[in-house]
Amino acid sequence: MFTQPIPTLRREAESLVILDQTLLPFRSETRALRTLDDVAEAIRVMRVRGAPLIGATAAFGVAIALVREGGADAVLDKALATLAATRPTAVNLHWALERMARVLRPLPAAARIDAAWAEAAAIRDDDAATCAASGAHGLTVLEAIAARRAGPVRVMTHCNAGWLATCGAGTALAPVYAARAHGIDVEVIVSETRPRNQGLLTAWELRAAGVALTLIADNAAGLLLAEGRVDVVITGADRVAANGDAANKVGTSLKALAAHAAGVPFYIAAPHSTLDFACADGGAIPIEDRGADEVCRIRGTDADGALTDLRLAPADTRVANPAFDVTAARFITGIITERGIAPADELARLYPEHAR
Amino acid sequence: MFTQPIPTLRREAESLVILDQTLLPFRSETRALRTLDDVAEAIRVMRVRGAPLIGATAAFGVAIALVREGGADAVLDKALATLAATRPTAVNLHWALERMARVLRPLPAAARIDAAWAEAAAIRDDDAATCAASGAHGLTVLEAIAARRAGPVRVMTHCNAGWLATCGAGTALAPVYAARAHGIDVEVIVSETRPRNQGLLTAWELRAAGVALTLIADNAAGLLLAEGRVDVVITGADRVAANGDAANKVGTSLKALAAHAAGVPFYIAAPHSTLDFACADGGAIPIEDRGADEVCRIRGTDADGALTDLRLAPADTRVANPAFDVTAARFITGIITERGIAPADELARLYPEHAR
Repeated sequence: MFTQPIPTLRREAESLVILDQTLLPFRSETRALRTLDDVAEAIRVMRVRGAPLIGATAAFGVAIALVREGGADAVLDKALATLAATRPTAVNLHWALERMARVLRPLPAAARIDAAWAEAAAIRDDDAATCAASGAHGLTVLEAIAARRAGPVRVMTHCNAGWLATCGAGTALAPVYAARAHGIDVEVIVSETRPRNQGLLTAWELRAAGVALTLIADNAAGLLLAEGRVDVVITGADRVAANGDAANKVGTSLKALAAHAAGVPFYIAAPHSTLDFACADGGAIPIEDRGADEVCRIRGTDADGALTDLRLAPADTRVANPAFDVTAARFITGIITERGIAPADELARLYPEHAR
Repeated sequence: MFTQPIPTLRREAESLVILDQTLLPFRSETRALRTLDDVAEAIRVMRVRGAPLIGATAAFGVAIALVREGGADAVLDKALATLAATRPTAVNLHWALERMARVLRPLPAAARIDAAWAEAAAIRDDDAATCAASGAHGLTVLEAIAARRAGPVRVMTHCNAGWLATCGAGTALAPVYAARAHGIDVEVIVSETRPRNQGLLTAWELRAAGVALTLIADNAAGLLLAEGRVDVVITGADRVAANGDAANKVGTSLKALAAHAAGVPFYIAAPHSTLDFACADGGAIPIEDRGADEVCRIRGTDADGALTDLRLAPADTRVANPAFDVTAARFITGIITERGIAPADELARLYPEHAR
């Protein structure tokens, strides 16, 4: 099993110690969360990010609330409501809170505290297991590439869907870490991922895990694919529709089109929690616009190493800033899940319980 | 004819006054170039940029050298050699210097000074005329769109191929300014153009010219095209091969693929100086890699409005930074030249003197 170079979260006595991702990739600092408000704030301001990690953090937040204030219904209700309000649209967050409620509500107040710690740990461990299973399936793709050409297997990715976003090895990067563990030489081509630059987090996490990487501007993906400098593209997904259309970080669809034109396979890594069989196709997936500030401002370190925000364009610039785009199923070679890999339009085969 | 809101260059007595583009889009300042070294430095550090503008600036540089040091062969030779060395790979620069040499060498030394000013002015005026002619041809594309739908004609572009890059209305943006002059409502969707952010120059120049714009991260192009929020894509080109394959700023090919998938027309605006009939196809076009620094560092203004450079990624990060990519002719709806618009694979029809 993959060991995170720095745990994204870990329990320490009655607190939760997280890696503070608002400072990454510039500073690597942990932060102890000791109260419900600490946990809610950490999720809200994105000290933790990535859908699976947010869910597990919220689950530990419930345990922290109960251990400090007791297991009464009022405490549980307040904890669930406070945490649910941090990121209203995060599917995993609500799924994790519902799982906590389902386990805790039937119990007497006195038994809830221990049960909350145990269930939060189970959510964390389940996520790590899901990452590991997806990684093992994705590994077969990289093994096949390694078997037919010399040199490192060159995997292009987008955004951050690695260990930083989960309690384990990640989603899109789980196959990379699995390949590494199996002695396969891997190199990751990391796309900057404007406007929020999550690719810089990916570069940081790969470096921390000792995996070779090449950073590119998002614009460079087409040339590298066309020139045969990429063997496979693997990205995560925010939501996969029943027909296999996949919404992911904006820019993903451009990589899929370029991979298709270049004859390079393009995979989406999507654990069960991102599969939405109730959503018929990509056209039904709502796309959030995140406003001008992300495009017009940027964060980095100045000559003294101090974290600094800069303005790139005037505050009154009109901006379109969609957070996601939709990659049509026909441009997706396969979807990597914890149950195996399926063609995008045959996903229901792996999840017969959801087939309609 | 389009009037530049601020002239990119203008003669003032025996000097050349340029708009200093190293400070844009943050500061709008002009700078007087009074010596050969001033002009060479301005081209080298990109105070002037854009192939047509570089060519005209170098031509004026020859005149400035002669007016200060006299018209002797040694002065002319030194001026030509100094200016040619500023940007060794710039095609227009060498074309302009050869044109100056061809006119000046046969003349007696005493006649060369006036002739140099006159020829430099002719190069400048020819460029403005080329922009105007391309703009008039491109206008027909925008007129056709305006005729069939209500609301502004929505033109997506990439990088900066507007008035800032030329002595006139630009290349890719010349049709936009022509449409504007003909009372057609136009809006330009401007792609940031990482890693050098020339899209921010485009946003600045459109605003200065009073044209509506929407700024996007490069990654957002696919979603906007897929959602029908773009009527036409027009970009410039650095070199167009005989078969119609076009090299332009990296990221252009991703827009062409996304436009093709969405059924949106994609045009390349390319004056004769960028057509290379000696180059068979895109595979023969060399692609410069510009190193890590452009990707790992960025410039903006801090809270006090001071120009500041920030680091985004560690200096030892491995980076691939191709400056251009190649858009295959089959994804190009047409090439807009000063002689008319041709399908990419029928360019030779417009230039029979180059047909082989």
